[in-house]
Amino acid sequence: MPKFPKTIENLIAELGKLPGVGPKTAERYAFHLLKRHRLDRARLAEAILAPDLSLKTCSICRNYTEADPCGVCGDPRRDRDLICVVANEQDLLAIDHTGEYRGLYHILGGTLSAADGVTPNDLNIRELLDRVGRERPREVILALDPTIEGESTMLYLTKLLATVPLRLTRLARGLPIGSELGYADEVTLSDALRGRREIAAEKTKV
Amino acid sequence: MPKFPKTIENLIAELGKLPGVGPKTAERYAFHLLKRHRLDRARLAEAILAPDLSLKTCSICRNYTEADPCGVCGDPRRDRDLICVVANEQDLLAIDHTGEYRGLYHILGGTLSAADGVTPNDLNIRELLDRVGRERPREVILALDPTIEGESTMLYLTKLLATVPLRLTRLARGLPIGSELGYADEVTLSDALRGRREIAAEKTKV
Repeated sequence: MPKFPKTIENLIAELGKLPGVGPKTAERYAFHLLKRHRLDRARLAEAILAPDLSLKTCSICRNYTEADPCGVCGDPRRDRDLICVVANEQDLLAIDHTGEYRGLYHILGGTLSAADGVTPNDLNIRELLDRVGRERPREVILALDPTIEGESTMLYLTKLLATVPLRLTRLARGLPIGSELGYADEVTLSDALRGRREIAAEKTKV
Repeated sequence: MPKFPKTIENLIAELGKLPGVGPKTAERYAFHLLKRHRLDRARLAEAILAPDLSLKTCSICRNYTEADPCGVCGDPRRDRDLICVVANEQDLLAIDHTGEYRGLYHILGGTLSAADGVTPNDLNIRELLDRVGRERPREVILALDPTIEGESTMLYLTKLLATVPLRLTRLARGLPIGSELGYADEVTLSDALRGRREIAAEKTKV
């Protein structure tokens, strides 16, 4: 039986290491790349290699950046009294794009996970504690996913920060907008009930 | 609003050019790559660039190959009296892996498509005619997709090959194995009826 030439097999194998990409998708990507102009391939290869040359980690928030400190940490208009702890860079952008938050961030680099072998030492937790001790923010917002991993990481951080004099908060849980109440799971519905608000004044009532 | 560093934005943009990859998926690929070891990134970049150095097109069947002629065309055990015309390399492999076919192939490089602006000059049709005239095969199998593009390409090739003394065939259409008759579309069911076979002898009865 013939197979693809080694060069193509190797390209398929390498593309197959991308997350969620199976052999058929990798094959599709590979042949798409082969049909494109060689300059397009060169551009992709260059983009893949560029981070090694120009990307570093912000020494304050641990976000990827080209200049240290990063654009957020170095922005004087940001409220330096607030630190929002997120798992990764994508979550940071998601929060920032709401326009609701103008404080600083801290990138944990993931969440604790026994299954994936992620321990506190694998995350920027030491850095967070040092930073909180040094910068003494008024509030730390734990903005991790409401998943088992996210919740246990928030619990862990809550314990670590218990003795530090600051306001420790987490994102509200409840019904996502556009969702149907009848299809919500019990936990979400319980959260929505417990976190219900007065309609007249926008005050939290527990 | 902060954005990702330019290096990352660029990586996301380049990955977003892969077929079927939207901005969110490209972002996921990009951050996955950033978290991997730099040697992994180097390996992927190298795999993307390698085809330019080592890959050529088989001068007989137009398949990708590292040596000319390719492994199939150069294989003396192959039946040189049969040429199976396929749209691309993936289709070639799919057919070959059935183990049912031991002849040669011809890669068209796509199918005619008014919508995508693919004309006969964009496909290896001239090469097919030259080859058929030179090699005089007993049979040419048109193994293109039973789609509008595939069908019109087969019609076009049928006309071109009408005067050449050879057996011109196409793949059977009918119900795919494992499918449910009640869910088959009318055309497929009509094809299956028209192409029905005697159960005792495996002969085609039209």
